[in-house]
Amino acid sequence: MDTMGRHVIAELWDCNEGKLNDMSYIEQVFVDAALKAGAEVREVAFHKFAPHGVSGVVIISESHLTIHSFPEHGYASIDVYTCGDRIDPNVAAHFIVEALEAGRNETVEVPRGMGPVEVEQSRAL
Amino acid sequence: MDTMGRHVIAELWDCNEGKLNDMSYIEQVFVDAALKAGAEVREVAFHKFAPHGVSGVVIISESHLTIHSFPEHGYASIDVYTCGDRIDPNVAAHFIVEALEAGRNETVEVPRGMGPVEVEQSRAL
Repeated sequence: MDTMGRHVIAELWDCNEGKLNDMSYIEQVFVDAALKAGAEVREVAFHKFAPHGVSGVVIISESHLTIHSFPEHGYASIDVYTCGDRIDPNVAAHFIVEALEAGRNETVEVPRGMGPVEVEQSRAL
Repeated sequence: MDTMGRHVIAELWDCNEGKLNDMSYIEQVFVDAALKAGAEVREVAFHKFAPHGVSGVVIISESHLTIHSFPEHGYASIDVYTCGDRIDPNVAAHFIVEALEAGRNETVEVPRGMGPVEVEQSRAL
């Protein structure tokens, strides 16, 4: 089905706090993650909050990647959503987990565009 | 917990196909949805695909709203993610469902920033 997509929701904990507060670094990581998964980057929008935290999105032809970081808690909330079956969103998510040096992560994959939303148990990448 | 968030995932079907392909309209709907929920808009990025379809994001101080539309299938994939407990993401999601004239929707709310990701059964807004 053309509407089919895969949406990886990842909760990253015990990350490198300096990297979680570095907007330029995060933006580069997210663009690289998209490219590494084989996605085509269309729009990039990031925002730095005071005193800390970064939010941002990379819109790809195949959907999006987002982050909200909480450096003070070592936490980042990540979404990688890819439409179609050409790209594996876990490739991008795993790249991000490594780049932010997450000590642990909890991840679920949500099928999109297929009917009722059904979600498996969370796991680590 | 400061990292606490609520992430509404909504699958909208049988939408108004003309509206699903109208980027300006969708952008306005998403900004209005964010404001209606009481959020503060920080960044707006939308992209129109050829021959059809719109992807976009509104980054708010409290996280984000995203859409990917498939006019040819009357389908839109929506995410409304709000951090904290001040804002109800369902208010924005419901506004979007109405504005896109979705005949039906399937929605789940995912708790974020709280530990393992656990998801309830999907429901209609």
